[in-house]
Amino acid sequence: MNIVVAQSGGPTCAINASLLGVFKGALKSKEIDIVFGSLNGIEGIINDDMIILNDYIRTYMDMESLRQTPSTLLNSCRYKLPDINDDIEVYDNIMNTLKRRGIGAFFYIGGNDSMDTVNKISEYFTQQDCDIKVIGIPKTIDNDLTCTDHTPGYGSAAKYVATTVQEIVRDCSVYSINSVTIVEIMGRDTGWLTASASVLRANGEIAPHLIYLPEARFSVQSFLSDIRRVQQSRRAVVIAVSEGIELDPNDIPEEIRNNTCDNFGHRYLSGVGKCLENIVRREIKCKVRSIELNIMQRCSSHLSSKTDIEESEQIGTAAVYAALSGLSGKVMVFERVSNNPYTVVISNVDASEVANKVRYFPPEWINAQGNDVTEKAIEYILPLIQGEQDIHYINGIPLHFKLGN
Amino acid sequence: MNIVVAQSGGPTCAINASLLGVFKGALKSKEIDIVFGSLNGIEGIINDDMIILNDYIRTYMDMESLRQTPSTLLNSCRYKLPDINDDIEVYDNIMNTLKRRGIGAFFYIGGNDSMDTVNKISEYFTQQDCDIKVIGIPKTIDNDLTCTDHTPGYGSAAKYVATTVQEIVRDCSVYSINSVTIVEIMGRDTGWLTASASVLRANGEIAPHLIYLPEARFSVQSFLSDIRRVQQSRRAVVIAVSEGIELDPNDIPEEIRNNTCDNFGHRYLSGVGKCLENIVRREIKCKVRSIELNIMQRCSSHLSSKTDIEESEQIGTAAVYAALSGLSGKVMVFERVSNNPYTVVISNVDASEVANKVRYFPPEWINAQGNDVTEKAIEYILPLIQGEQDIHYINGIPLHFKLGN
Repeated sequence: MNIVVAQSGGPTCAINASLLGVFKGALKSKEIDIVFGSLNGIEGIINDDMIILNDYIRTYMDMESLRQTPSTLLNSCRYKLPDINDDIEVYDNIMNTLKRRGIGAFFYIGGNDSMDTVNKISEYFTQQDCDIKVIGIPKTIDNDLTCTDHTPGYGSAAKYVATTVQEIVRDCSVYSINSVTIVEIMGRDTGWLTASASVLRANGEIAPHLIYLPEARFSVQSFLSDIRRVQQSRRAVVIAVSEGIELDPNDIPEEIRNNTCDNFGHRYLSGVGKCLENIVRREIKCKVRSIELNIMQRCSSHLSSKTDIEESEQIGTAAVYAALSGLSGKVMVFERVSNNPYTVVISNVDASEVANKVRYFPPEWINAQGNDVTEKAIEYILPLIQGEQDIHYINGIPLHFKLGN
Repeated sequence: MNIVVAQSGGPTCAINASLLGVFKGALKSKEIDIVFGSLNGIEGIINDDMIILNDYIRTYMDMESLRQTPSTLLNSCRYKLPDINDDIEVYDNIMNTLKRRGIGAFFYIGGNDSMDTVNKISEYFTQQDCDIKVIGIPKTIDNDLTCTDHTPGYGSAAKYVATTVQEIVRDCSVYSINSVTIVEIMGRDTGWLTASASVLRANGEIAPHLIYLPEARFSVQSFLSDIRRVQQSRRAVVIAVSEGIELDPNDIPEEIRNNTCDNFGHRYLSGVGKCLENIVRREIKCKVRSIELNIMQRCSSHLSSKTDIEESEQIGTAAVYAALSGLSGKVMVFERVSNNPYTVVISNVDASEVANKVRYFPPEWINAQGNDVTEKAIEYILPLIQGEQDIHYINGIPLHFKLGN
């Protein structure tokens, strides 16, 4: 039989490692012939827009460079499948395309939207008595999927955040004046990635001095008094703040609200970091800077976590074995067996358990003041960022694997 | 005799490598006893605020970790020495401190302001018949110092910019809609660092599709028509733009000018990238994002250029030999002997030649349309970003060398 793999949602450093895992799993299996790559996520199956991956990934170096290439080789989509009762034609379409190409299993690498797709298609196949297997492979830097200890992609993003915040701390500490540096970190709903800045403490760093997650109530007044308190003992204050914290508009001086904060419909204005920067400048009157780690935190594969990349590849291969063993409608997940030594096993759960659900940062891992995380959070995150990939450079720049220019 | 070393100006990844070079040069010399570190640049000499570096840098791993620590171990300052006719007391102060501590040579690692300091102090010492040597060691990610082929710190920043822009290109190419991504790169006066994004072409990348430097005249109308032209052949347009380009206020729609551009006195608003983002969104009406590489481009030592770090260390050591050979009032510089194989020699020039001068990006390396650089620029930059440092990690995070927390 043939198989098809697709990638969906926002880029990470680990999605191509999972793609490689699926590909290598298929190579090892005598039952699998062609590995198709569906372009633009599920859309490539709906529109029958696929490539034969075996024609592109041919050598050892192809695999090495694919593993270290960020983002999605097969592009992506934000397409959400309609409810089957609203539009069964799309589902028929998918089944017919897969059958026509002799495809016996479909692997979807993505976030919780994609797991919804896995769930819907596998349910439809069951209804239709169609034997094509559908398996979901999770990925997201947000780490907010349920039923898994962590998600592929999170460890690398966390390693980037921790390393970069440490470098920012060095950079911000050189002048003998008071300063506040606000680092805005991704995570619209959950604080997992922002919390990763805390792991610097494992190396004796005190910074970041304050950490704010969406799971804790945020108040501008407490924020300002937190800073003033830290300033009593140190010159350069470094703050990690999630893009997803909620600011009460009434807490923000009108002039700043009108000019910089985008929570209020001003889409062309800036994010929460810039807004807080302006509040600090006005209220505390010291040197202040905000830094958005922006998409670098999800695509800086030159600094990926070896643990994350290896696990992401393994979970891709495990998905192939799961399909071959007859499973369908499942999402592959990690279970952490032990922290010391760090040990995970790969298992699977029903896609319906994962689809459309969000796993929040545990409130008990946030301190009472809501401005830092606890030791437990550090213990949880630290194993996920261990190890560095041996990156292949050409002309001083990491080698990327591409389908074309 | 003893010596003293100080660091000044904005952080880079290479300033501590030059500090290490001075330190190791001193260790090798039988004539030098103590290496003092002046805290906060020249201010530490004026205020007699120094540490004995030999007490801190004791082991091989101290040296290894210092080399890979970004920013300035000894802090920094933006202090500019007054003219000697305006305030001779400061100069007397400096001389007395150095004499009292038995210091025979002062090494100042910094940008063109610092080279002005080197020049002034050495002239004063000559007047006073004081035999203390003063040597400047250049550093700046801006690469805008005269009399040297390039500056320590530039190669690492250029490697970061090129690597990161390549990762951004991968990230931005996944969706099947038109998009424009504007990467804002440091360089208030010169385009050297922005130009480094062009080296991706050496690996067959077409992006960045447009490059704008301060040395070329910038027009919003040409910018928009450049984008529209590129969009005829590709979906995802990636643009490298220097923070230093000058926008004509009359070119900017009033609403955007009032809300986001900081060139006009609105210091709490955003930079040129955000301003251009808003213009593109309004005029071209496609998905658009601006990304500020911010201070990460000067402090991401986890991704430094081995060539840059090795040269930065060597030029520090060479400065010690220069002082021991009797030179003073000099700045150490690189001369490029050959590009293939890349070969540089370290020599020196009078500090007065370097002080307060700016070296601009050569206009002949900018294309006729003013929206890209030529092959010559790529040939110049490429050797400077070659090689990667073996970074030591502890707990998955680069090991940094610190004097305290």
